Amino acid sequence: MENFTYCTPTRYVFGRGAELKAGEEAADIGMKKVLVVYGGGSAVRSGLLKKVTDSLIEAGIAVTELGGVQPNPVDTLVYEGIDICRREGIDSLVAVGGGSVIDTAKAIALGVPYEGDFWDFFAGKLPATVALPIGVVLTIPAAGSEGSGNSVITKTDGMRKISLRTETALRPKWALLNPELTFTLPPFQTACGIADMMAHIMERYFSTTPDVEITDRVAEGVLKAIIEEAPKVMADPCNYQARANIMWSGTLAHNGICGTGRREDWTSHGMEHEISALYGVAHGAGLAVVFPAWMSYMADHQPEKIAQYGRRVFGVESHSDSVAAHEAVDCLKGFFSSLGLPITFAELGVPDPDIATLVKKLHENKGEAIGGYRTLKAADTEEIYRRAL
Amino acid sequence: MENFTYCTPTRYVFGRGAELKAGEEAADIGMKKVLVVYGGGSAVRSGLLKKVTDSLIEAGIAVTELGGVQPNPVDTLVYEGIDICRREGIDSLVAVGGGSVIDTAKAIALGVPYEGDFWDFFAGKLPATVALPIGVVLTIPAAGSEGSGNSVITKTDGMRKISLRTETALRPKWALLNPELTFTLPPFQTACGIADMMAHIMERYFSTTPDVEITDRVAEGVLKAIIEEAPKVMADPCNYQARANIMWSGTLAHNGICGTGRREDWTSHGMEHEISALYGVAHGAGLAVVFPAWMSYMADHQPEKIAQYGRRVFGVESHSDSVAAHEAVDCLKGFFSSLGLPITFAELGVPDPDIATLVKKLHENKGEAIGGYRTLKAADTEEIYRRAL
Repeated sequence: MENFTYCTPTRYVFGRGAELKAGEEAADIGMKKVLVVYGGGSAVRSGLLKKVTDSLIEAGIAVTELGGVQPNPVDTLVYEGIDICRREGIDSLVAVGGGSVIDTAKAIALGVPYEGDFWDFFAGKLPATVALPIGVVLTIPAAGSEGSGNSVITKTDGMRKISLRTETALRPKWALLNPELTFTLPPFQTACGIADMMAHIMERYFSTTPDVEITDRVAEGVLKAIIEEAPKVMADPCNYQARANIMWSGTLAHNGICGTGRREDWTSHGMEHEISALYGVAHGAGLAVVFPAWMSYMADHQPEKIAQYGRRVFGVESHSDSVAAHEAVDCLKGFFSSLGLPITFAELGVPDPDIATLVKKLHENKGEAIGGYRTLKAADTEEIYRRAL
Repeated sequence: MENFTYCTPTRYVFGRGAELKAGEEAADIGMKKVLVVYGGGSAVRSGLLKKVTDSLIEAGIAVTELGGVQPNPVDTLVYEGIDICRREGIDSLVAVGGGSVIDTAKAIALGVPYEGDFWDFFAGKLPATVALPIGVVLTIPAAGSEGSGNSVITKTDGMRKISLRTETALRPKWALLNPELTFTLPPFQTACGIADMMAHIMERYFSTTPDVEITDRVAEGVLKAIIEEAPKVMADPCNYQARANIMWSGTLAHNGICGTGRREDWTSHGMEHEISALYGVAHGAGLAVVFPAWMSYMADHQPEKIAQYGRRVFGVESHSDSVAAHEAVDCLKGFFSSLGLPITFAELGVPDPDIATLVKKLHENKGEAIGGYRTLKAADTEEIYRRAL
């Protein structure tokens, strides 16, 4: 186990009606002028946006709204949000939506108190330590941004999709999680969310750091819960209990508890970010294609932890690490397929991907050698992309 | 899954040399005049106390010391600490030790800003919401107080041992966890700590709340890690990695992550508190005696979750819940015995316990009917105590 620091101060309010606590939670931490960030029309049509803003207003909080966040959120709306906040003296943000909305709110929160370009933080020019406080009303269990200190934004100029990770600056102060709000998620989006949260755990799990039994066991536990509950939400989208298990799993998958004390990997996320930046596919769907390909490569070259995953998470019984690792890949592919997710580029709707460009941009963004579990160069990542064909 | 709130804002610094960060962490949150609370002489003799106070002083922080905390800590030292803090204008506390030291520091932190008797909070007369900030340098992985919002204090007048639970008021602001500091723990104390952390998980796990798969799986994961790592620390007390796994497990066992969304039990803790209040035994040793007895009673009367525990944690294979539950009890007893822990009153050094008094005080303190998994009255708790003979 490696040395680590761990701090997850977000206050979670979980259960039916949680969204109605927005005003109370906001007032409790002194929010006074809030920018409410949301996505498309669903939050408006469902009445959720009005519920949240009413709750804020009833608590004596002034509300300004900024809608229009799209999946794979871009910098242009961040700049617009920063302008609004400065112009109107906004002191805090409330995100009503999923990862894209939350990540946009986080980037705005970071940009407002900073004199320069907010992209400086994403470009790694300086550490992100100060941001306006953020609250979240979660509608999509997937990105885990409601509990993480991360934000992923795409720069439209060059379509660079970059993930910024902070210890606490970007962790929401509070997050309201009502599983009922996820009943209307379409099956494909539900499945993409499940792939995303599983990937968040697996990026942490596939590590060469020895002696991390406690962290491995917690990660395996969350994965097993997801694998058990996912078919239930697919079969019955209004199954409150299954939705609740999936929703809380998505938070635990990415708040850091599954990664304490070890070097993490994150290659598959990096490889997927290039795919979604170039082809605009859903992040979770891209992960369902890339992650098994990455695992298949590792089953050939470094199977130990892939085999452990297969045995402990999917009950694979083979004694040979190499065989068990390949069986683990098959199990994961079968599981993703059972949820209606793509597991090849073709199924993803990208029958003829420009692998040369994906590899080139990946290493431009992440460096010549990437990966925590095994160091990969362009020839390796090209092979992994090819395994996903 | 039931509605819940969850907030664990403690900042953990984990690893070799963590104790040297005391000054930095204290200064970061504005601590200026600190009361350092510790136990017996071991923190002095090992040089740990000096390392911590030096670190604080180097960070410009004024230090006052209060030693002498005993296991099963009592109110008298709390009153003394409160007096010192008021007299010297102390603004914060740093606990150097295990659960008893931390719980004493927490009770002092609660008492200083309150005009009345700090015991009012433990007696349930009013909710505990305001306390001085606390930092922790942990030396005993057991009570989990470094991450919990709880404090357990015994009132010397009447020997009432009461646990106070707060959502965040008593959670430490920071906790420094260096596994090396636990190398010198005697085997019996190490084992008692392991029993205590397992009990913290099991009190949460044994619940009738349905559909808590995610919380069950996390709890099972932490239990499995403890069961795997415990024999390693018993065999080799200076095994850093095993000590590290046990130390972090002890924190996760009691910071709430193993209990989200369900009604908890806590009968065994209540029953043990009467034993340690009356006979002064180590809390963990008392739990090793009481918990299997409680489980054995439940195996007869309500075996479902006990059976699940047996199957998932110890790999019990019986299809009958009743049989599997009793096998689970045997597995746990065998595990505790293998660590050198007592599993009967006689082995605990109390060959002829005054069960009538234990039962009477238990229900005086906790009410006529107790327990979350199954409601128990005096006849039931008497039978459970008897099963531990």
